[in-house]
Formats: sequence, structure tokens, C-alpha cells
Amino acid sequence: MKFNFITLFPNLVTPYFSDSILGRAQTSGLIEINCINPRDFTQNKHKKVDEYMVGGGAGLLMSAQPLCDAIDRIGQTHVIYLTPAGKKFNQNDAKRLAKLENISFICGRYEGIDERVIESRVNEVFCIGDFILTGGELAAMCLCDAISRNIAGVLGNANSLDIESFEDGILEAPSFTKPNIFNGSPVPSAFLKGNHSIINVLKNHMALCKTRFFRPDLYQTLKSPNFKEKR
Amino acid sequence: MKFNFITLFPNLVTPYFSDSILGRAQTSGLIEINCINPRDFTQNKHKKVDEYMVGGGAGLLMSAQPLCDAIDRIGQTHVIYLTPAGKKFNQNDAKRLAKLENISFICGRYEGIDERVIESRVNEVFCIGDFILTGGELAAMCLCDAISRNIAGVLGNANSLDIESFEDGILEAPSFTKPNIFNGSPVPSAFLKGNHSIINVLKNHMALCKTRFFRPDLYQTLKSPNFKEKR
Repeated sequence: MKFNFITLFPNLVTPYFSDSILGRAQTSGLIEINCINPRDFTQNKHKKVDEYMVGGGAGLLMSAQPLCDAIDRIGQTHVIYLTPAGKKFNQNDAKRLAKLENISFICGRYEGIDERVIESRVNEVFCIGDFILTGGELAAMCLCDAISRNIAGVLGNANSLDIESFEDGILEAPSFTKPNIFNGSPVPSAFLKGNHSIINVLKNHMALCKTRFFRPDLYQTLKSPNFKEKR
Repeated sequence: MKFNFITLFPNLVTPYFSDSILGRAQTSGLIEINCINPRDFTQNKHKKVDEYMVGGGAGLLMSAQPLCDAIDRIGQTHVIYLTPAGKKFNQNDAKRLAKLENISFICGRYEGIDERVIESRVNEVFCIGDFILTGGELAAMCLCDAISRNIAGVLGNANSLDIESFEDGILEAPSFTKPNIFNGSPVPSAFLKGNHSIINVLKNHMALCKTRFFRPDLYQTLKSPNFKEKR
């Protein structure tokens, strides 16, 4: 999978993909991270990439021409624009997009980008949450990370994918590791006794409690009371 | 404001804050970014920071001791743990947390961290959205970015804060910049005529349409039909 970041600040983006799981995925050729700077495409003689808004408004907007020319240079690709005014990105999107071969992220800065770029070039518009960032870079990096780990071979342990939060609509249960007692605080005793059916019942119960407390919205969407009890 | 990232991968975190708005905020002393590696605190003779889960389960968990000792070294701080199983972070949280002086982010890796760290050290547990990342670093960077831009002086133009998406529960209207016609596609003609009351009515209408289309959940929460019509 090739990811293209269309950004004025490539130096903020590339280091994140230099180490750990995604660093290894790059080294082994499973993913490729490519940055394209719209400043290299501007036809403005002062290399400007932004302009004041037509019709008034505070702040600057990224111009259409450098962005469109940068996108057109990439060739066949699925273009995603990151903006607070988009559909909320979720785990199903991550799985769906992991099947593509080439994805480009437009990382907006300032007050965003000329709407005509979205109309003419963009396939999907996403936000990651109800908060505002200084630019689209971090949101694009989140999508790239979340998509990448759904590409076969990127995660060492494919099992990890199956049991994690959201995969079945509820949050993960609390987890514990050695030592059995840390600063006077013990691991729940059932975990130590090794009866995996009891442990699973307990974990499911804790997962439901956690979901109900932290994410009542997810809890509501659990299919039926039966499903809830069965877990 | 001082931000501490407790992370096994400081090199993935710091470069993002080296340039643009947040780079300038660091240079001018408005924010400070500090990374603390739990590996420097482990008492394990092989420098291990992770263990298998007690009670079984795929993958490794970050151990309590290195994390707790790293947190305790920081002193007075507000500790935030990032995990998919947390409360959804939003713009109100960003504004509230911008008033603090010292915030620490625990960036989980592998299957997360020993629950006893959360019980004994963590003030708030957040997630950024319904998707899974390879680690907590990107989520922590999102919080840090969103919080920082609400600190007085970080954004050049304070006006930008007022008109943006979510500040009044709806998304921003589409925006346009020069040229007035780009590749045959014109800016809406009202924008060119300069009657700001007409432009505002049009922008409000477009903002409502966009909210209704992309974020029906936000649209539902708009106070009353009157409010909707007035806009």
C-alpha cells in the first residue's frame, strides 16, 4: 500500500513512521510513505499556497491550484481530505481502506482548503473526532496508522486483531500482568487460578461494565439484551 | 504548559512539535514538550518493560513498575491515559485542559498497560475515536495539539478560535479563495458581491446542510428548530 501525504510540513509527518511496527512495515515493503509538498506545485511567483477567503472571514485558505496539481501528479489514487467537517472515521473504514493500493491524504492548514478541491478531486472526507487540530497532518497520520495495521503482515500477531476493542462493539476488559501483587494491589484472584472459562466470563462482564461506564453510546448499540447477558 | 509524553518511542513524538504553530509555541516558551521513556525506569535486569498477561490472552502488556516510577518522577501533574476504552475526547476537554500547567500522557503499546497503573496513577482516560492505533502516541499528540492551540498566544489570530467547527455545535461552511473561477468552477456569486449579511445567511445555511449530511448526530443536538432556522 502506498500512502501519499499532501502537506506543507513533510518533516512533521515522516518521522512518526520511522520506527516500531510501522517502521518495520516500511522496511519490509508492506507500506510506503510518500510526502508531496503543494508548495512545489504553485504557479504563484512568490511560491504562495494560500489566499484570503472570498467573501470575507478570518484567516487564510489553501489555494486550489497547487493542491489539484499535486494530486494530479500522483495518478490513480483514493483521495481523502481531513477536516473537522467530515464523517467520523471508524474501525470499519480502516478495514475497508486497507484493501486499496494507493491512498492520498490532503492535510489542510490555516482555515482549510478551497471547497473546489473537495468537489473536483476528493473521494472521501473524514474527521477523527470532535476537536480541532492545528492542521490535518495528525488526523491523516491516525488514518494511515489505523489502516496500516489492518494490512496483512503488518502486525506480527494476527490474533491481536481479533480480540481488541470495537471489533465486536464493546471495549476491551482490564488486563493485568506480573507481578501478581504490585504495591499492595493484587490481580483479581480468578485470573490466577487458570480456569479459562471462568476468566472469560469475568472478562466479558468487566468489558460490559467498562463499555457501559465510558461509552454508553456503544453500550446502547449492542444488539439485544440476550447478547449482553450471554457475554 | 508542560506536556510529558511517557513513551517507549520518543523519536516518533518530538519531531511533530518541531515546526509550524507548535514549533513557534515551543520557541516562545508557551508550551514545553518532554519525553520520558519508561525503559529508563525498569528494575528488570534485561530492561524489559512488558510481560505476558496474567490469566492468558494474546500479546504483551506494559508492566506497572516502570510506568509508575516514570510518572512519580514527574511530580505534580495531571495524568491522562490514552486507550480505545476511554471517554471520547472533545473540544470542551481541550479548552478545560488548556488551563492546567502540567499534563502527562501515558502512551500504551502492545496490548495496553497493567490496569493497576490506571487505578493508582491516572486522572483521566481518553480515546480519540472508534478506531485502533499501533500505540497511544498519536492519540496523545492529538490531545497535545488540540489543547495547545487553546492556550493564549499559541494561535496568531484569536478570531480563528471563535468561528471554527464545533465551537457552536455545527460544522464550518465551505470556504473559497481566489481565483474566482478555477478550472471552470466559480465561487458562489453572492460571495463576490460583498453584502456581508447575505453572505452570512448563505454560510449559515451551508453550514447547517453540511452538518445534517456529514454529522446527523451533531445536527440532532442543535438546541431547537428556532435556533436552526435563525442561523
